[in-house]
This record gives sequence, structure tokens and C-alpha cells, in this order.
Amino acid sequence: MEEGCFFEDLYPGRVLRSARALAMNSERIVTFAQEFDPHPAHVSPEAAKETMFGRLCASGWHTAATTNRLIFETLRVPGGGAGAGVEQLRWLRPVYPDDILRVEIEVLSARRSRSRPNAGVVTYRCTTLNQENAPVQEFTSIILVPRRGTVG
Amino acid sequence: MEEGCFFEDLYPGRVLRSARALAMNSERIVTFAQEFDPHPAHVSPEAAKETMFGRLCASGWHTAATTNRLIFETLRVPGGGAGAGVEQLRWLRPVYPDDILRVEIEVLSARRSRSRPNAGVVTYRCTTLNQENAPVQEFTSIILVPRRGTVG
Repeated sequence: MEEGCFFEDLYPGRVLRSARALAMNSERIVTFAQEFDPHPAHVSPEAAKETMFGRLCASGWHTAATTNRLIFETLRVPGGGAGAGVEQLRWLRPVYPDDILRVEIEVLSARRSRSRPNAGVVTYRCTTLNQENAPVQEFTSIILVPRRGTVG
Repeated sequence: MEEGCFFEDLYPGRVLRSARALAMNSERIVTFAQEFDPHPAHVSPEAAKETMFGRLCASGWHTAATTNRLIFETLRVPGGGAGAGVEQLRWLRPVYPDDILRVEIEVLSARRSRSRPNAGVVTYRCTTLNQENAPVQEFTSIILVPRRGTVG
């Protein structure tokens, strides 16, 4: 049995959930933001109190990158699952220190690739949820996924 | 004179360019990907040779986060410029070690906010370019920007 998710496994309506959840911690929230998003709400617990968020919270791009890690572990597409981008990336709620994130990936559509007979084109919606099952981020994405028996 | 970009500064057709460019280096490409996107093309120069990219290249989310840093420095919206998400995020070309990235931000539309009289709603397209002026990433985004004279 080949390991990972192939095109045949990703049929419309299927929902995949991350096996593990990832905890956000304040130190990493701050160092990520110092490098990529030095907004007061993301780099300083003190300064964050004066922002619309009221306290330290993660950069949306930190949430997005963490989500990608969870998708990587959940989909496990052989060859990596080439994706050219994402649609309608939305940050729905702040992510605070010690929030624990997981993902739900719902397959929206799947079709054979016209140009690559060994692959299929899969569209999915990824929702990132916190420990209270509240969505904190959402996007849809289109990826190329190999058909079973075509890899290796 | 108030510092930074206010609503009045972001009129349709205006293009802002990042004052500095950011160089990507192979060590950071690898450590970012080990944490967030451990695809063979992003974590190992050796393994990357066997992928569709042919050599080590950055995670798209690393490019996106680096782009955000450049946007932050370029727009300098007072209060940070609340953004709820991005549309049509596209990775157009691989980003390789020692590529030097800059951004061009084109204002597509601007209107007064109906719910917040002190702010405006600005839609822009951000294009990330490499040292050969080739676009490597693109997205559009909608942000809330304070009007001049309403902050502080």
C-alpha cells in the first residue's frame, strides 16, 4: 500500500483532520513577528494593550505558516502536492499565546488533470480552529495530486 | 506632518515601492521550512535536486512572510493597517537562495469607510519581484487605513 494521500483519496466531501494540534507560544509569536510583521500587537505584550487586539496575538502570517505545517502533516501528498497559491485567505479571530491550533481540510472538488494524465486537480477549503473549536483562519487552495500507482 | 501612509495618501493608481530589498539566504530558507513547510525542495539542497524545482527554493509561505515585512516598511500605516485577509495569493516563480526581493504596491481602489468615519478602505495589489525584476508572488488585499488628522 502506497503511503500518503493520492488523488483517489481526495473525493469531494471528504474531510481530513490534523492528527495533532500545535500550541502557539508567546516567545515564538514575538520572534516571528520581529522578523516578518513587527506590528505592536505582535511584538510586545505591553504595546499590544494599546492596540485594537488588547493583548499580544500572532501575526496572521504566523498563523498561515503554522497552518501549512498542519496541512503538510495531514495531506501527506506524495511529492509534496504542488500548489500555485491560495484564494480568499481570511483571518477570522486573533490567535493568542497558548492557543492550540488544528486544521480541517474539506475537499470541495476533484478532477483529472487535462495536461498531466498521472495527476488530478483538487480544490479544498482549509479551516484552522483553536482549542474552543472557533475558526481563526480560512482559505481555499487548488493542488495537483498524483494518481495512485504513478509515483516512485 | 504626521508620519506614515494615511488614507489620503493611498489614491487609486499610486504605486509604492519598498525602499530596501531583502536577500533570501539558504540557511533561513531551510530553518523556516523545517518549522513550517518541510517539503524536500525547501529543507535540503540534496533532496531538492530530485524535485520539480531542481534545487533548494523557499517555501511560498516564507516568501509571503518576507513580503509582509517589506509591505510593513513600505506602507507604514499608522496603527498597523488592519487587514482581514488577502485574495488570490499566487506564487509565480521559485525563490532561490540569494534572490533579493522587493515589493511594488499598487493602489487599486480607495473609499471612505461607511462604519468608521475616521478611516478608509483601500484595496491594493502587491507584487513581489526578484533581482531580475521578475514577479515571484502576487496578491490583492483590502486594508482599513486611518484618515489624516484622526490618529494620536
